[in-house]
Amino acid sequence: MKKILFQSDYNEGAHPAILEMLAKTNFEQTPGYGVDDHCKHAADMIRHICNAPDADVHFLVGGTQANVTVISSILRSHQGVVCAASGHINVHETGAVEHGAHKNLALPHHDGKITAQQIDEYVSAHYADESTEHMVQPGMVYISFPTEFGTLYTHSELAAISAVCHKHNMPLFIDGARIGYGLQSAACDITLPEIAALADVFYIGGTKQGALFGEAVVIVNKNLQKDFRYHIKQNGGMLAKGRLLGIQFEALLADDLYFRLARQADEQALRIRRAFEAKGFSFLIDSPTNQQFPILDKASIAILSNEFEFSRWEVIDDEHTAVRFCTSWATPDSSVDTLCDAIGKLQSPKS
Amino acid sequence: MKKILFQSDYNEGAHPAILEMLAKTNFEQTPGYGVDDHCKHAADMIRHICNAPDADVHFLVGGTQANVTVISSILRSHQGVVCAASGHINVHETGAVEHGAHKNLALPHHDGKITAQQIDEYVSAHYADESTEHMVQPGMVYISFPTEFGTLYTHSELAAISAVCHKHNMPLFIDGARIGYGLQSAACDITLPEIAALADVFYIGGTKQGALFGEAVVIVNKNLQKDFRYHIKQNGGMLAKGRLLGIQFEALLADDLYFRLARQADEQALRIRRAFEAKGFSFLIDSPTNQQFPILDKASIAILSNEFEFSRWEVIDDEHTAVRFCTSWATPDSSVDTLCDAIGKLQSPKS
Amino acid sequence: MKKILFQSDYNEGAHPAILEMLAKTNFEQTPGYGVDDHCKHAADMIRHICNAPDADVHFLVGGTQANVTVISSILRSHQGVVCAASGHINVHETGAVEHGAHKNLALPHHDGKITAQQIDEYVSAHYADESTEHMVQPGMVYISFPTEFGTLYTHSELAAISAVCHKHNMPLFIDGARIGYGLQSAACDITLPEIAALADVFYIGGTKQGALFGEAVVIVNKNLQKDFRYHIKQNGGMLAKGRLLGIQFEALLADDLYFRLARQADEQALRIRRAFEAKGFSFLIDSPTNQQFPILDKASIAILSNEFEFSRWEVIDDEHTAVRFCTSWATPDSSVDTLCDAIGKLQSPKS
Amino acid sequence: MKKILFQSDYNEGAHPAILEMLAKTNFEQTPGYGVDDHCKHAADMIRHICNAPDADVHFLVGGTQANVTVISSILRSHQGVVCAASGHINVHETGAVEHGAHKNLALPHHDGKITAQQIDEYVSAHYADESTEHMVQPGMVYISFPTEFGTLYTHSELAAISAVCHKHNMPLFIDGARIGYGLQSAACDITLPEIAALADVFYIGGTKQGALFGEAVVIVNKNLQKDFRYHIKQNGGMLAKGRLLGIQFEALLADDLYFRLARQADEQALRIRRAFEAKGFSFLIDSPTNQQFPILDKASIAILSNEFEFSRWEVIDDEHTAVRFCTSWATPDSSVDTLCDAIGKLQSPKS
Repeated sequence: MKKILFQSDYNEGAHPAILEMLAKTNFEQTPGYGVDDHCKHAADMIRHICNAPDADVHFLVGGTQANVTVISSILRSHQGVVCAASGHINVHETGAVEHGAHKNLALPHHDGKITAQQIDEYVSAHYADESTEHMVQPGMVYISFPTEFGTLYTHSELAAISAVCHKHNMPLFIDGARIGYGLQSAACDITLPEIAALADVFYIGGTKQGALFGEAVVIVNKNLQKDFRYHIKQNGGMLAKGRLLGIQFEALLADDLYFRLARQADEQALRIRRAFEAKGFSFLIDSPTNQQFPILDKASIAILSNEFEFSRWEVIDDEHTAVRFCTSWATPDSSVDTLCDAIGKLQSPKS
Repeated sequence: MKKILFQSDYNEGAHPAILEMLAKTNFEQTPGYGVDDHCKHAADMIRHICNAPDADVHFLVGGTQANVTVISSILRSHQGVVCAASGHINVHETGAVEHGAHKNLALPHHDGKITAQQIDEYVSAHYADESTEHMVQPGMVYISFPTEFGTLYTHSELAAISAVCHKHNMPLFIDGARIGYGLQSAACDITLPEIAALADVFYIGGTKQGALFGEAVVIVNKNLQKDFRYHIKQNGGMLAKGRLLGIQFEALLADDLYFRLARQADEQALRIRRAFEAKGFSFLIDSPTNQQFPILDKASIAILSNEFEFSRWEVIDDEHTAVRFCTSWATPDSSVDTLCDAIGKLQSPKS
Repeated sequence: MKKILFQSDYNEGAHPAILEMLAKTNFEQTPGYGVDDHCKHAADMIRHICNAPDADVHFLVGGTQANVTVISSILRSHQGVVCAASGHINVHETGAVEHGAHKNLALPHHDGKITAQQIDEYVSAHYADESTEHMVQPGMVYISFPTEFGTLYTHSELAAISAVCHKHNMPLFIDGARIGYGLQSAACDITLPEIAALADVFYIGGTKQGALFGEAVVIVNKNLQKDFRYHIKQNGGMLAKGRLLGIQFEALLADDLYFRLARQADEQALRIRRAFEAKGFSFLIDSPTNQQFPILDKASIAILSNEFEFSRWEVIDDEHTAVRFCTSWATPDSSVDTLCDAIGKLQSPKS
Repeated sequence: MKKILFQSDYNEGAHPAILEMLAKTNFEQTPGYGVDDHCKHAADMIRHICNAPDADVHFLVGGTQANVTVISSILRSHQGVVCAASGHINVHETGAVEHGAHKNLALPHHDGKITAQQIDEYVSAHYADESTEHMVQPGMVYISFPTEFGTLYTHSELAAISAVCHKHNMPLFIDGARIGYGLQSAACDITLPEIAALADVFYIGGTKQGALFGEAVVIVNKNLQKDFRYHIKQNGGMLAKGRLLGIQFEALLADDLYFRLARQADEQALRIRRAFEAKGFSFLIDSPTNQQFPILDKASIAILSNEFEFSRWEVIDDEHTAVRFCTSWATPDSSVDTLCDAIGKLQSPKS
């Protein structure tokens, strides 16, 4: 019997509306490289929902590429990017930032987050040091919303980080690979236009939120807009048939589809969470979005592994491991039902 | 009225068989990053048609990425890649190779090609020089088949290049973004298995040959296979929903579709070529594949531009410019008919 | 009045024997770039004292350059260098390793050191991870002897690290910028030939040990010797008048001068240490070499600062800071006398 | 018998005034990394002779390092450096510029020089191209004065290049490794202050002009001054005992020594030139400075090789090779006398 995959939020194809739109436009002839009308239209839609009429919008194929292209376009060679030690760019991109010749300046994270105060202290210490020039200069800040642990920055946390960044003349870049799942969470107290007002650059993820692939990079800060297309091409991110990206975002943003899918995924995740809670399992982290990190004993992992795929996240002790269950835009009720039934039959952890 | 685009071979979407396959498989759940069964199956199909049972096959999103990933995986830091001055990596990739910290060692080209003798002389001169270590060491060779001018290496030319490469211990890498158009040309005297036997690495292009996007990198030389997936990820080329690439190549390689589409595009290109020849126009280059480079006077360019888009390629003199017309798997008879009619009405160049 | 500098071990010029040798050889004509007879002779002397007859020896200008050149010559692009978080390459080289496109894989340090077990666990975890290829591959190990905190690895610690490196096929690189101060310490239980037998590459520092400048890189592992001169040139480290480096090492290695100077500096450092101990000051770290790290209160720092320069190393609390006093080959008795007198007059810390 | 070396201008040590000054200052204690009083004083002297009171002056160890550090500090990642194909950075630095991730945009040279018109056409064509963003953006211009062939730009040529650079917002960087030999040539019509007024950055070479090593980088353009010391450190060019560079330039610039030495070397070179001319030999290039490139037959090369070392520069045909004879600040009359005698005894080439 085939297992049900809760491994990640990219285990399926794309929302059918996207496939329909691709089929419908298939024989249109358009110029390549993202200067076609679909891309223009999708960019307008994005500027509109971000309330950022002067932003530049570019469509890139994937997240690692988006990260490295934005970072490469901003930093000078002696500068690095301040990030959480748990940040995707620091852990799971095979050193793409360093391959692009920049150092990640990793700060200790708290549930995947860093604070304005940490950043301020780090940067102030850099400039106060006797050996300033012997250390990489902090040139920008990267955070993820939601984080790699599914957690969210509050409006006031983000506003404080933004203020510190601008005080030190460092652009703030927000990795929004799962931004929809964040914005639709009941725990979220910030809106997309508010994010656009606080960030210098961010992106709206498609890959993990219903598209076949694609991320929409929004460059709000006008000083960072010049020559960005050179960087896209240099980093191998300029899709020949760029319209494929525009078309997908047109489809996703029509009728609020993008956000409806995200909300539904978050709800499925909370169902899974409540099932584990009901049995008395604890969690590595308190995530209000589509990724859940229960701590399971070996026996429970073995039992669930018979029917489901999920990720081993962090070994807690000889007997326990934190695992990750992901839902997505594509997760059907039935899969979550089956999972919750199985959870219900696990033996409760000893207290 | 909408113009007909002959600008490039990526002005349309994908062959309908691909869209159907994507729709059919859409809700299958698969692991990410190209380790799914579709990718495995497509890789098997490719090993089979290449007659290269021990080759590794990897699916990347686009050509620039494929080039830079292969080159980055092969070269040590003091080495560069020998190529034609007209090579795509040297001209039209915004310095992606140099951004990856390697120098293109560009040799003068002849109709887009370089010769075994040129390579041998260049490499021999490098090692004979008093200042060897002050110059970048030639570490591999890159050629395109067909070249950026649509021309083809013969079997004996490729065999000679391959022999020189191996004499100097340099892997031979063949950019096959348009390899189908080359192999299906009446002028081609080499087969895919023969290419696989002569090259150390090459790729079978999808983007320009019927896919939405994607290139299949074939690593024939076992010494170059290790750790390649790290390089894909590091260069931003590891598609989360990797199956999208496997599925597309499964569709393209079924029933010889890939090659049928290529042959048809070459034939359309030859119709255009004959139309220009019939009026007495000359060509920048004698291309037997899907790109044609007639030299046109300003008046002819202006007339054709009313109905068609095509690329300005190279200014010949004040009055003449070489232009490029591309056909593709998607070019219908009707578009070529309309173009040939228009060509027929141009004023013949003065002899 | 001029202050006495204990800031670093490069506050003076060079041992007079070096200046004499430079003057004596000044008008000799030699070929450039380190292929002259002085370099050859100095390399032979080094092979001899290392008991490493097959080692390659190269002379580079400085430590950052030596580090980045060795690392760049060893790693492939997807690999990083395992090091202590406190390692010089990770802290005080302005990201030169990352500028060379490699990630430092920093492990928590203990008094500046890392252990064989830490390395083994880190590397094993890398290969065991589900997402191996999404993370930088550990490709080599870098340690400093003595460390940046003046501490020493024991013979058995180094042997264990060497064994783990070779188990995982990672070359071991030892930064020996202050290797003499280490080898001459009473606390050292390892010899230069033993280091040469355990390391794949290391260097014998000149800059901080009596030379005007210069580090002698010793490549013991034959697999790492090929093409190293290309890397020196590429990293800007090939001195035109290379003989200047050879001459300096000839002078330093004659009559055991290098080691005599180092021993003397260690002894001066211990005098300073005992002076602080006698007053009851504690130390950040227990260093047996030429760098000492007493923890001082604000008042003591202010008093000593009137007559001496030394480095603020690490803030301990509002009232206390660990500082660094360095001695060198050039530190005269009189300077240490003056310092010890001043220490003797400080108020003892409250217990 | 020992041969006389005319291979290069770095076959000897340093002018004795430098060695004396190093000995005299040897036990001074100074802070490291070039912030000492000797460096400050030497920088003042350089600002004075350049009539550039607001310039920043930094002392680096060598030419490759100076080139790569300046270029790395100026360019963003999508930009390259326009240079002559014969430029040192493009030929003899083992791809250090590319290792720093930037492309050399090499233009055909004329006797080692490029023209304002060439640069203007190249840059204009870049921005006019349909595929602008697919090509590396020209971000700065590098020229050498004198060139690698010993030739000189005239004042009007340099002024025109400077004007084109500023028109296109590209800094002009002049490699002055041999700038003294250029300025002191009878053929030179430009002064050091005029060069400082036309360039954005340039350097005054020490290595080839009487110092042990060292180049003084002069950053005239205030926009390029910020953070330069980070780049020096990152590129391995921040000498621990930075004062060694300051002291050498103090000695060289006292009493016009630098320029007197250069003038004398140029005169010795012209004696050699006249000796070849007198016998009827022709030259690869008409150089008015310390490098001379006569074209010699095999027999003459063999005869001169018995007593002298010189470089093979370029094979002309089966029988003839252009060779290079270099004089320097250290070349004594007697060596040139001996060479001229030997030349006088060669057989004249057939006309």
